[in-house]
Amino acid sequence: MRILGIDPGTGICGFGVIEGRKLIDCGVITTPAHTPLTERLEDIYNSLHEIIKTDEPNVMAIEKLFFKQNITTGISVAEARGVCLLVAKQCHLPIYEYSPNQIKKAITGYGQAHKPQMQEMVRLHLGLEAVPKPDDAADALAAAIVHSFIAKTDQ
Amino acid sequence: MRILGIDPGTGICGFGVIEGRKLIDCGVITTPAHTPLTERLEDIYNSLHEIIKTDEPNVMAIEKLFFKQNITTGISVAEARGVCLLVAKQCHLPIYEYSPNQIKKAITGYGQAHKPQMQEMVRLHLGLEAVPKPDDAADALAAAIVHSFIAKTDQ
Repeated sequence: MRILGIDPGTGICGFGVIEGRKLIDCGVITTPAHTPLTERLEDIYNSLHEIIKTDEPNVMAIEKLFFKQNITTGISVAEARGVCLLVAKQCHLPIYEYSPNQIKKAITGYGQAHKPQMQEMVRLHLGLEAVPKPDDAADALAAAIVHSFIAKTDQ
Repeated sequence: MRILGIDPGTGICGFGVIEGRKLIDCGVITTPAHTPLTERLEDIYNSLHEIIKTDEPNVMAIEKLFFKQNITTGISVAEARGVCLLVAKQCHLPIYEYSPNQIKKAITGYGQAHKPQMQEMVRLHLGLEAVPKPDDAADALAAAIVHSFIAKTDQ
């Protein structure tokens, strides 16, 4: 089973595709600073359709949103997330949602793990020489890996 | 100028189209309770494309989001709003955003106006016999009317 992980965001939206413990593709959909929100949403829509067409994943794993300090950023992240969910539906991909804590706990064994620990576990799990960059791509891969654990597809 | 007003939401998404003080179309995009979020987002996407094709608006006026008590509902409203903004961009409609207080103040002269006052002003402004129903359609028309005031298109 090929899994597309998504770390939603408007400025930078991370994606990562894995099959078992193999990295297929990863990167970010990004737009220059001060690009209008609607242009960013359209870019996410078009790029994500392109990624799904190229990488042919079977499911999407995406981070659940939790608002903490920055509610204003949270609104635009949710707007981007809505577009990601729409694209998954249009492409007939089942969607699985995991909270940040679920992802941290599944990857590192600890729900409050720090970013470098998470990234190192992603690197090790996929047998990569270096941590995937930027952070948003690694975060997207983490969501995909968690789904592979839960769906038991990496056995 | 023909204005499409939107009151974003996942369960019910209100829309209203006006030209000057004339009501062209209004209603809601709605899905049964317990419909999965992604199905709702796809329904909003398809319905909104259909409405724009039929009613041929020149601009979209949409409520800005503010999170107050219910942040969980707020997330799904923002996800729906992201899809509405995407459709506007795909249809080349300029987007104007107004806060709930801006809308209330422009329509009734008072930023803390109650819903029945708002609805009555919408009814009077458009010369309708009854208040447009449901509430979400009236709210969408209110956003469109505010844009008509600001864009001075109803003179």
